[in-house]
Amino acid sequence: MEIVKAIQDEYPDDFSYCYGCGRLNESGHHFRTGWDGDQTVTFHTPRSEHTAIPGFVYGGVIASLIDCHGTASASLALHRKNGHEPGDDFDAPRFVTASLEVKFVKPTPQDVTLKAIGTVEEIHPKKFKVHTEVFAGDACCAKGEVGAVIMPDTFGGKK
Amino acid sequence: MEIVKAIQDEYPDDFSYCYGCGRLNESGHHFRTGWDGDQTVTFHTPRSEHTAIPGFVYGGVIASLIDCHGTASASLALHRKNGHEPGDDFDAPRFVTASLEVKFVKPTPQDVTLKAIGTVEEIHPKKFKVHTEVFAGDACCAKGEVGAVIMPDTFGGKK
Repeated sequence: MEIVKAIQDEYPDDFSYCYGCGRLNESGHHFRTGWDGDQTVTFHTPRSEHTAIPGFVYGGVIASLIDCHGTASASLALHRKNGHEPGDDFDAPRFVTASLEVKFVKPTPQDVTLKAIGTVEEIHPKKFKVHTEVFAGDACCAKGEVGAVIMPDTFGGKK
Repeated sequence: MEIVKAIQDEYPDDFSYCYGCGRLNESGHHFRTGWDGDQTVTFHTPRSEHTAIPGFVYGGVIASLIDCHGTASASLALHRKNGHEPGDDFDAPRFVTASLEVKFVKPTPQDVTLKAIGTVEEIHPKKFKVHTEVFAGDACCAKGEVGAVIMPDTFGGKK
């Protein structure tokens, strides 16, 4: 369960230090997101310290997974709309989260690889909504929605 | 900026390993939440690796802060309703998050102590809604809402 061609590999270096999904953040989660047909997928196995109650995953990590999966999914969608796929070596557009909603459906067991599956909806050329379900095995443990917008200039950085 | 009497000090040991707010989780955030009049307060200074883009705080940490601040605020409210305050050495009720909503109002600067301020609303004897604003100095950077319910038996543990 691994994403071979992840959109995070195409983020410009300056925008690759995110604790959730930045390939250059040494202590981060390193979420990697790719296409599975018309849906988007991120796998993640939470670390042992990322617990809510012993045996169950911390909600903040599930929220983080849904958050970065959302911005990555929006980036995948716009990148595809622009004629690109991860791996063809074009800088991908970087999105930020305007809004995040998570419904915790059931306790999420630890020591399981979680699978986030996303469906992307274009709201506006610069704004996407991403609907995500997080599965532990066959069980949907959380559902989320991210409003993702193209990173505004206020974030600085070079592109 | 420190909470002297935090509700997290009153959580039973078995429920004190949360990565966000558990006093017994060695690598966690150690969020501490107390009363400020009729509102609730949590202070947090994100670690340097908890970055979104260099200079700005990772949204997943802000979501985590709002999440644990929400369950803690619900616990404070029910504890007070039951005649207790943090520090009087009674086990506090432990809540879990059913739903979490975050609106990211503006980029949150790093190297600043954030202040989460909560207002608690009782929906049902076992369910509370907590409205939270997160400030960096005078600037409100994020707003959130948590639906918190008393921890169900499915979480196990001893109380």
